[in-house]
Amino acid sequence: MHHIDVIRIPSRSPGDTSGLEALIASGRVAAHDIVAVMGKTEGNGCVNDYTREYATSMLAACLGRHLDMAPAAVEKRVAFVMSGGTEGVLSPHHTVFTRRPAQGTPAVGAKRLTLGIAFTRDFLPEEIGRRAQIEETAAAVQQAMRDAGIASSEDLHFVQVKCPLLTPGRIAAARARGCEPVTADTYESMGYSRGASALGIALATGEAALPDLADAAVLHDWSLCSGVASVSAGIEVEHNVVIALGMSAEATSELAIAHEVMNDAIDAAAVRRTLETLGLHGAEGLERIVNVFCKAEASPDGQVRGMRHTMLGDSDIHSTRHARAVTGAVVASVVGHGMVYVSGGAEHQGPAGGGPVAVIARA
Amino acid sequence: MHHIDVIRIPSRSPGDTSGLEALIASGRVAAHDIVAVMGKTEGNGCVNDYTREYATSMLAACLGRHLDMAPAAVEKRVAFVMSGGTEGVLSPHHTVFTRRPAQGTPAVGAKRLTLGIAFTRDFLPEEIGRRAQIEETAAAVQQAMRDAGIASSEDLHFVQVKCPLLTPGRIAAARARGCEPVTADTYESMGYSRGASALGIALATGEAALPDLADAAVLHDWSLCSGVASVSAGIEVEHNVVIALGMSAEATSELAIAHEVMNDAIDAAAVRRTLETLGLHGAEGLERIVNVFCKAEASPDGQVRGMRHTMLGDSDIHSTRHARAVTGAVVASVVGHGMVYVSGGAEHQGPAGGGPVAVIARA
Amino acid sequence: MHHIDVIRIPSRSPGDTSGLEALIASGRVAAHDIVAVMGKTEGNGCVNDYTREYATSMLAACLGRHLDMAPAAVEKRVAFVMSGGTEGVLSPHHTVFTRRPAQGTPAVGAKRLTLGIAFTRDFLPEEIGRRAQIEETAAAVQQAMRDAGIASSEDLHFVQVKCPLLTPGRIAAARARGCEPVTADTYESMGYSRGASALGIALATGEAALPDLADAAVLHDWSLCSGVASVSAGIEVEHNVVIALGMSAEATSELAIAHEVMNDAIDAAAVRRTLETLGLHGAEGLERIVNVFCKAEASPDGQVRGMRHTMLGDSDIHSTRHARAVTGAVVASVVGHGMVYVSGGAEHQGPAGGGPVAVIARA
Amino acid sequence: MHHIDVIRIPSRSPGDTSGLEALIASGRVAAHDIVAVMGKTEGNGCVNDYTREYATSMLAACLGRHLDMAPAAVEKRVAFVMSGGTEGVLSPHHTVFTRRPAQGTPAVGAKRLTLGIAFTRDFLPEEIGRRAQIEETAAAVQQAMRDAGIASSEDLHFVQVKCPLLTPGRIAAARARGCEPVTADTYESMGYSRGASALGIALATGEAALPDLADAAVLHDWSLCSGVASVSAGIEVEHNVVIALGMSAEATSELAIAHEVMNDAIDAAAVRRTLETLGLHGAEGLERIVNVFCKAEASPDGQVRGMRHTMLGDSDIHSTRHARAVTGAVVASVVGHGMVYVSGGAEHQGPAGGGPVAVIARA
Repeated sequence: MHHIDVIRIPSRSPGDTSGLEALIASGRVAAHDIVAVMGKTEGNGCVNDYTREYATSMLAACLGRHLDMAPAAVEKRVAFVMSGGTEGVLSPHHTVFTRRPAQGTPAVGAKRLTLGIAFTRDFLPEEIGRRAQIEETAAAVQQAMRDAGIASSEDLHFVQVKCPLLTPGRIAAARARGCEPVTADTYESMGYSRGASALGIALATGEAALPDLADAAVLHDWSLCSGVASVSAGIEVEHNVVIALGMSAEATSELAIAHEVMNDAIDAAAVRRTLETLGLHGAEGLERIVNVFCKAEASPDGQVRGMRHTMLGDSDIHSTRHARAVTGAVVASVVGHGMVYVSGGAEHQGPAGGGPVAVIARA
Repeated sequence: MHHIDVIRIPSRSPGDTSGLEALIASGRVAAHDIVAVMGKTEGNGCVNDYTREYATSMLAACLGRHLDMAPAAVEKRVAFVMSGGTEGVLSPHHTVFTRRPAQGTPAVGAKRLTLGIAFTRDFLPEEIGRRAQIEETAAAVQQAMRDAGIASSEDLHFVQVKCPLLTPGRIAAARARGCEPVTADTYESMGYSRGASALGIALATGEAALPDLADAAVLHDWSLCSGVASVSAGIEVEHNVVIALGMSAEATSELAIAHEVMNDAIDAAAVRRTLETLGLHGAEGLERIVNVFCKAEASPDGQVRGMRHTMLGDSDIHSTRHARAVTGAVVASVVGHGMVYVSGGAEHQGPAGGGPVAVIARA
Repeated sequence: MHHIDVIRIPSRSPGDTSGLEALIASGRVAAHDIVAVMGKTEGNGCVNDYTREYATSMLAACLGRHLDMAPAAVEKRVAFVMSGGTEGVLSPHHTVFTRRPAQGTPAVGAKRLTLGIAFTRDFLPEEIGRRAQIEETAAAVQQAMRDAGIASSEDLHFVQVKCPLLTPGRIAAARARGCEPVTADTYESMGYSRGASALGIALATGEAALPDLADAAVLHDWSLCSGVASVSAGIEVEHNVVIALGMSAEATSELAIAHEVMNDAIDAAAVRRTLETLGLHGAEGLERIVNVFCKAEASPDGQVRGMRHTMLGDSDIHSTRHARAVTGAVVASVVGHGMVYVSGGAEHQGPAGGGPVAVIARA
Repeated sequence: MHHIDVIRIPSRSPGDTSGLEALIASGRVAAHDIVAVMGKTEGNGCVNDYTREYATSMLAACLGRHLDMAPAAVEKRVAFVMSGGTEGVLSPHHTVFTRRPAQGTPAVGAKRLTLGIAFTRDFLPEEIGRRAQIEETAAAVQQAMRDAGIASSEDLHFVQVKCPLLTPGRIAAARARGCEPVTADTYESMGYSRGASALGIALATGEAALPDLADAAVLHDWSLCSGVASVSAGIEVEHNVVIALGMSAEATSELAIAHEVMNDAIDAAAVRRTLETLGLHGAEGLERIVNVFCKAEASPDGQVRGMRHTMLGDSDIHSTRHARAVTGAVVASVVGHGMVYVSGGAEHQGPAGGGPVAVIARA
């Protein structure tokens, strides 16, 4: 079984790997133990956000130097999930996850953090946002749960997926083969890819059943969702990357994870409940937080608690950018700062307008 | 002495006056009692945001029909302050302020809300952001306090100013006369105009002394500020419009105002303290809020509580837009929704990175 | 038969009507002769561009004062088509079209400019971008041609349509009735509305046949298009407004119109050919131009003359904004300045990536 | 003396080095001959455009593999100038410059393309946009001319400089030392850095004299400019990189360069004159073009040929983005496509509102 460590590193720019280098140099982290890195990079978080692949390239090159591997091989070994967009008070950073064999004897009766990773095959452009992506993701989530040693969905607290989007080139390639993608709008394709991936998570956890998950359900039937799903789309992948985070009685670290579902983008109470579940109180409790992970979106009905919002009609700033600024600020106002992981676009991830929030803290 | 009423009206679009029409038609408000309207409109809140003047034009035309006055005359009688930008969960609305002679006898020992308005002369482009704007604003603030019947700065809780900005045309006009404006960057001119106006408020309240208020202090000496200043710049004015809000023992309404200073953009505690000062507790307390008014900005040192933010280096979204999204979300998470007045750009309005917050509620 | 005059007026801001006032005051134009106004306003030209309705409101109020009519009645009498977006060198202006009975005897053998207008009924949100909008537009185009006295499609040179878009509120209203709009993305709805309207024009002119114009053809079958269609979407209408411009042997003004189809966004040669058709040569020829009208778009295949463009993957600036900047600059480089009417989004208006260009000039 | 080759390579994304790899693999280019790479990358071209440093990092890593050097060492050997922003029809690409010893005997009486490079020291934040940057740049330009073997300014046709900008961090660092940078606005700092660098070029060529080049002249005295200056600012450097391009009777390639000054952003005639100087006529002439290099800006007086433009008051899209779209389209309409180097922000580079244009073609 696993011993997990999680370290949050500030980054000075998208290509900055000095924090990771220092961590390795200090001996705090061994490069070969790193299984996943989740980052917030300071791009627009939308289609043409190259800060995600830039960060991934530099991190993979950095680890490749330490592991004596080509960067491409590192990307097959480590689950890199870069989420673009640090609107408002969000602060660019990476969260590094390491995994070693269990250390000593698990504490009796106390579950600890564990994690697993998996990758799907590459998707064809016309598969994105549709049934194929749902089913492949579900299979990968189950594989990641096995890799983590998470026995049941009750112990699963957060599933992070990185998924592809449609570019003009990919759309043209599909059409050249006579296949029509789910949309020709590149920004909208991000929502479809996130939505289908989230439904895949819901399928894996049993929150949704296969017969309900037709193509037409994606971005339409908001009753279908997963309370542990967090999905980020990006131009830098053609497959889905899955990180499953949960608890296990056999894991041996000092870390724990808990989650709640935010009912809307300003649901500070859900964040506070998550802290309470972990027994975090006052300033000392906040000190024990390693990171917060959550999803944000502009409510698709155009309202938050009965008041009209303007995010969906704003042609200057995409709604995912607004949503990250909002939920990032709400989380920051609870936990004391903005160096948290808030990702935009919560289609089928929690209820419409809301999304899951998870906290990893020292027990 | 005055009897003040304050009503918040949702707006469906920048040109929507149906709410005001309904208010007048219902008899709730008499058109001739309206002395001020503060609005949030759904533009970018920056230089080329014409939703502010569009809203003002339609409101002035609407009141003009009821008062049998030309719109231009209405704009000299009523203080219109439109603040653009409803990023995130902020919801477009207007706050209508009416003023009648005191009704009945003031409650013994209980101060109530009062307000006054004033206008400066038009400014030359080269006066914006400089000493002339500081001094003229100070004089207008004192005039508005007298108009309100606010005896001392201790009873002054919020001073809202609308001020002009520099356009390419105004800059060219100044240069044609051999005068150089404080900046040739139109967006940056908004900050200079807000900053000088805020220093004018600080001068009027005694928070700053005239000898310290040289041109060079504007946007440089952040130790100079006012804890009650709220300033919005716009293309729709060439003079400053001032609304002074405070408390008076002779005012007779059921309304009260209190304020605090947010130390940074995520200072939810300051919002909660303001509610406590007004005796607002729980859901019932939130029901009694008429509106919240506050300022937001990206901390000029590039950090919020020690964590780097990226708002000042974002060339796609101006920092005032980010800041409104942040503080709007924080306030909404406390008071329960986003139909609140949050304005961006808090130069010399509260400490660097923070700003004043005021709440009007039924006593 | 008709005597048409066309005057281009610079505007200083979206709400500026001083140019129109001066034109009427000078006697150059009689308010009751005005049948159409086409404007370029300085908003983003996308969903939340309120400069279009602001301009329309102010123009209708201005004409209402002169005609002693309510603004709403003016909007039913005059065809207002405001196109947002003056990216690059495009310069905000209005083009005023007047129509009087024919003056004197038509020149023998010489056709002159004529125009007609028409309006469709309001569309339900779920009709936008679909067959109903196609058919209603086609009927209105034929009505406008009759109104203009344009006998055949050969004499029809430019059909300008203003059409609605989907807002979050309109989408929610449709769904509340159990009807699903063609898209839930507000920006994308502009393209659907323009596309269906353009196919309606193609149907009216015989460039397309009804059986080919199924819902599925809109934004998919690029072989269907009209070489005289120019369509602008806006939040300010719920119906289509149609202006048909053409030539007639019975019209009596000194003005003529000609058009060509730009093959792509940089097809300066098509602009030059149009000038040649009108006999415009050299600087003197350029002086005789009253205005140029054209459509621009980012080629949907992601390439211009074999070179990849990045407009369709840009999540900071919508592709219609890029396209207006491009074609506006190309036209300006030919005709000498940027005070021309270039509108973005040329779906089914000319070939994919290109669009019609028309020039009105003194004969 | 030198034998220069220049190859233009399309890039599929900012991190794409496949074109360069293929060029080296084919033997067309030897890695050790590469002295400079100028690229257009698809970021916003403003402060937070990391596509420039991403491209540079990947190109340096690629060449480092071939040269067996660390990427940092490659960046000291090769002049990388990445210009962000491919608005409109501009197409991302790299231009690779190689230099070998002269091959054979120079053609008698025929000058050919030559080039040289140089680097300044790193600048302190407070030096940017001021005299120190002017003088250091001038010295580097003269060094690059010597490196190129360009004997006099008459043979100098284009000087490309890459220069730094101010970030929130660099501004804070300067202030911590008690030094005030020229501006606290990060976007505006790009203009100051470009402007001072251009004045440095003007000083080196004799187009301006040292006594006129006080700090106050930068961005104010538009009469001071260089007709061969092209400067791009970026977050990825702290020093200036200089590439001098000109003609020499001793150079031996088949390539030539010529330049003109565009009087404004739509001056297509200047582009055509440059082609004529090089003897390029018709389609065959266009085929001989290797690349076009030019600068674009929004005229600071707010007008282009007497018509108001809105670029300087647009708070959604920075004026340099508009300007690139405009001039890129104009150049593309002349040379037939958009894979050309157009860089935004032409302060002191040609006349106000205009800028230099250079063409490299096969003789």
